[in-house]
Amino acid sequence: MNKKGQLIVISGPSGCGKGSVINKLLKENENIILSTSMTTRNKRLNEIEGKDYLFVSKDVFMSKINKNEFVEYAEYCNNFYGTPKEFIQKNINLGKVIILEIEVNGALQVKKNFSEATFIFFMPPSLKTLKDRLINRNTESLEKISVRLKTAMEEITRSHDYDFILTIDTVDNSCYNLSSIINSLYFKYENSKKIIYEVLKNA
Amino acid sequence: MNKKGQLIVISGPSGCGKGSVINKLLKENENIILSTSMTTRNKRLNEIEGKDYLFVSKDVFMSKINKNEFVEYAEYCNNFYGTPKEFIQKNINLGKVIILEIEVNGALQVKKNFSEATFIFFMPPSLKTLKDRLINRNTESLEKISVRLKTAMEEITRSHDYDFILTIDTVDNSCYNLSSIINSLYFKYENSKKIIYEVLKNA
Repeated sequence: MNKKGQLIVISGPSGCGKGSVINKLLKENENIILSTSMTTRNKRLNEIEGKDYLFVSKDVFMSKINKNEFVEYAEYCNNFYGTPKEFIQKNINLGKVIILEIEVNGALQVKKNFSEATFIFFMPPSLKTLKDRLINRNTESLEKISVRLKTAMEEITRSHDYDFILTIDTVDNSCYNLSSIINSLYFKYENSKKIIYEVLKNA
Repeated sequence: MNKKGQLIVISGPSGCGKGSVINKLLKENENIILSTSMTTRNKRLNEIEGKDYLFVSKDVFMSKINKNEFVEYAEYCNNFYGTPKEFIQKNINLGKVIILEIEVNGALQVKKNFSEATFIFFMPPSLKTLKDRLINRNTESLEKISVRLKTAMEEITRSHDYDFILTIDTVDNSCYNLSSIINSLYFKYENSKKIIYEVLKNA
């Protein structure tokens, strides 16, 4: 069966475990890839063009914005970052599942520009758990953690724009549940019209 | 996590392999049960009340129809058969997944009376495969098989009322895919409002 490609947009509070779950998913599925962003910032020495980022000039980026060629973009520290529609469409046509990990504002841009994407919000089991995880990382001041928790609450209140809410408990369990969600998409009626047509055509 | 119960309505052409896939699913998941129908027909010797059917008089059945207490019902050979809302609601409250295997007309009745159900259509890989399966069963005349195939085509053309179209290849694969669909339902936004509320409440 020639499966239809998918764009999966994932958001969730910092520290909820997105990275570990997505890494496990990618490791276990050859057909699932991370989205590659386009950026105007300078390439660093250890970075690989086309793998870490697609590096372009500001002029090229601006022209692409004007031609509505991004599913989302944002400016950060005087540099632009965006997800090219062309990259997404090309990989969907190849039957790939593309994971785009992005914060809530970016996800809502994607929703406007690429409505056939599936939106999954990663939820911590509780804000207490999230706080503990951030503290245990031991990389940030309590003050910074407190800002992160406030942001987390704002993000969670905006999770109603997502198709799925995935509570992150263990990495194994969450990865299994994420796989279920992605696998289920292949069988949605909207994605099965071609199959129905083929069965009836060959009657 | 206290998971929400679900009603899963499954239809699909006779001979497409519904029985084998559902049996495997039930065997592997204690939390998944078959729906039990209510009927006005006489109990047979080997049948167990409450397991095979809920046996009631015609008067009781009629009174339940009038009170809109079925998610679907039908008359067949002078007897009535129906799925009581009470049975479904009770098991959903217990967090159970209830499988209701039913033909297309019944499924559309359920859609009207219990819209929160999930509708899955089991699709043969092709009508040729379906025909071969029916012939290999060796239980029916070619004439009867030809009627079944005509019915199958009619059912397939009505599959647009279903949420998912599951092509049945091997039993193992189909059961895995069916499990994915059922598991994914727990994470749908509509089923996660309580979780979001709990996380924010305990902030």
